[in-house]
This record gives sequence, structure tokens and C-alpha cells, in this order.
Amino acid sequence: MGRKRLFTFASLLALAAVVLGYQGRGRAPRSAKEDKNVAAVRAVIEAQAAAWNRGDVEGYMDGYAREDATTFVSGDAVTRGWQTVLERYKARYDTRARMGTLSFSELEFKPLSEFYMMALGRWRLTRDADTPHGRFTLIFRRTGVGWRIVHDHTSSE
Amino acid sequence: MGRKRLFTFASLLALAAVVLGYQGRGRAPRSAKEDKNVAAVRAVIEAQAAAWNRGDVEGYMDGYAREDATTFVSGDAVTRGWQTVLERYKARYDTRARMGTLSFSELEFKPLSEFYMMALGRWRLTRDADTPHGRFTLIFRRTGVGWRIVHDHTSSE
Repeated sequence: MGRKRLFTFASLLALAAVVLGYQGRGRAPRSAKEDKNVAAVRAVIEAQAAAWNRGDVEGYMDGYAREDATTFVSGDAVTRGWQTVLERYKARYDTRARMGTLSFSELEFKPLSEFYMMALGRWRLTRDADTPHGRFTLIFRRTGVGWRIVHDHTSSE
Repeated sequence: MGRKRLFTFASLLALAAVVLGYQGRGRAPRSAKEDKNVAAVRAVIEAQAAAWNRGDVEGYMDGYAREDATTFVSGDAVTRGWQTVLERYKARYDTRARMGTLSFSELEFKPLSEFYMMALGRWRLTRDADTPHGRFTLIFRRTGVGWRIVHDHTSSE
């Protein structure tokens, strides 16, 4: 193989590496930094469940970014703004019996960038009267006070 | 103000700018590049509705990344993998009457990074028998063939 050919071959190899690396994005093994971010996001979700289960709706709401742009989607309704989301929760879960016991399971994390992460999971409320359950997709953003939910899409069976 | 003081003052100003810029992330005005990405994502969503409305479920599925990691969430169920999502759609909408006419509205876009974007919107199916409707949260990734949905959380009223 002559010098020129070798150069062409090396260029093609480099191009293939770039293209494959590009297409493979998102399936790459997680970096130590991403592991740390996943642990931080998981801790926020676990703190939310713990707050809920001691009847502390405001503590639960600490998991959400205190911003007007924070959104909560359920059914065909969008609730906008941290304060409005809090009021929705307070209105729907106005007694300890209605709050029941919240558990999250099957948590999965998908880092989207240095600043955003998606979390997918299953939720279940154990109450005397019923046990509603479903799934949630959360978008977390790294804020000045830690990872916080900026978008929550929750569905129930 | 002496030179040293001026320097300290300038350093504090720079620090404040970094901190405020950091906290303000996500509310910054969109760049021309982000505008271009939003237009590309919007075009994918519009192409999906057009495909659906000519009875082309496979064309509709072109909007999703052809990957095993593609997820579709609805109610308490997660469907995993492009092929499985296609089969779910085909099973649920197996006649032209069941497909009805799909319309999307109230589309909002949130760029998350150079490679990811969130889209939020409202969906409605107009059919002879009923008009189901609800919301969707989509996570798009820039792939080798353009922006494609890698995660879809759909809820209905």
C-alpha cells in the first residue's frame, strides 16, 4: 500500500469512527461523572418518597425546581409553575389517608447532557380504599441548589 | 478605586455573571442553532401526523429511533424497542376507522443539549365513535438520520 493510499485508508477509518461514535451516542457506557449525577438524581427521588410518606407535601415538592417554567402533565392537563403544582397536590391529597404510602420502583436514568437527565419509573400509592399506580417520566435539570425536576409527565392505569 | 480593588471588583462581577448564567440556564433566549433544531423536530412531528392521516403507520413510526432502547410509556405500561412499539400501534389501530384523524396542537419545544430536545404537546383523534385526546412528552435525539423520538410518554384524559 503506497503512502497516499495509506493516508486515504486512515482517513476513511477516522471518518467511520466518527460516524459510528456519533450514531452510538446514548448507548455509550456511563462515565464516573454520569454515575455521580445518577446517584444525585436518585437521592432526590428517594427524598421525595420519604417526605410524602411522613405527610410532608412541601418536602416532596422540594424535588421540583421552584420556577414558573416547571411543568406537571397528567391525563390531558398541564399544570405550570412550582406553586401551582404544589396547590394541585395539596388539593388532591388533602388528608393523610388520601396521601397513603407512596413507593417508586423500576427506576431508570438516562443522562441527556451535563445539565439534564431523564428518569423513568413506576409509582404506586397504597391506601385503605385503593392502590392507584402508573409510570412517570421526569426531566431533571442541574440547578444552583442541585438536581431538580423541571418536567413531570405522570400517567396512571 | 485602586488597581487591586478594581481587580477584586471585576473578579466578583465575573463570578456573579457565571453564577447567574448558570442558574438562568434553560431560560436563555434560543440560539439560531437551537431554532434550526426546533424546526427540524417540528417537521418530524408534522410528518408523523401526515403519515397517520394517510393510514401509514410505518410512516408514522419513522419519527421514532429504530433502536431497541426506544421506549413508549402509556398508563402503567412501558413498550420497549422500535419494532414492539410498531406492533402495539398496528394492533390498536388495525383499521382506518380506528386510526381516525390525528391532530397535534400546543406544541412546545425545550432544547436540552446539542443532541437532545424535549417536545410537549396535545393530541386528539377524531373518529366516528369517539374523540380520545391527551398530552405527550417526547424526548428526541439527533441521530445519524435526523432527529428521532427515543422516549414517548403519552397520556389520555
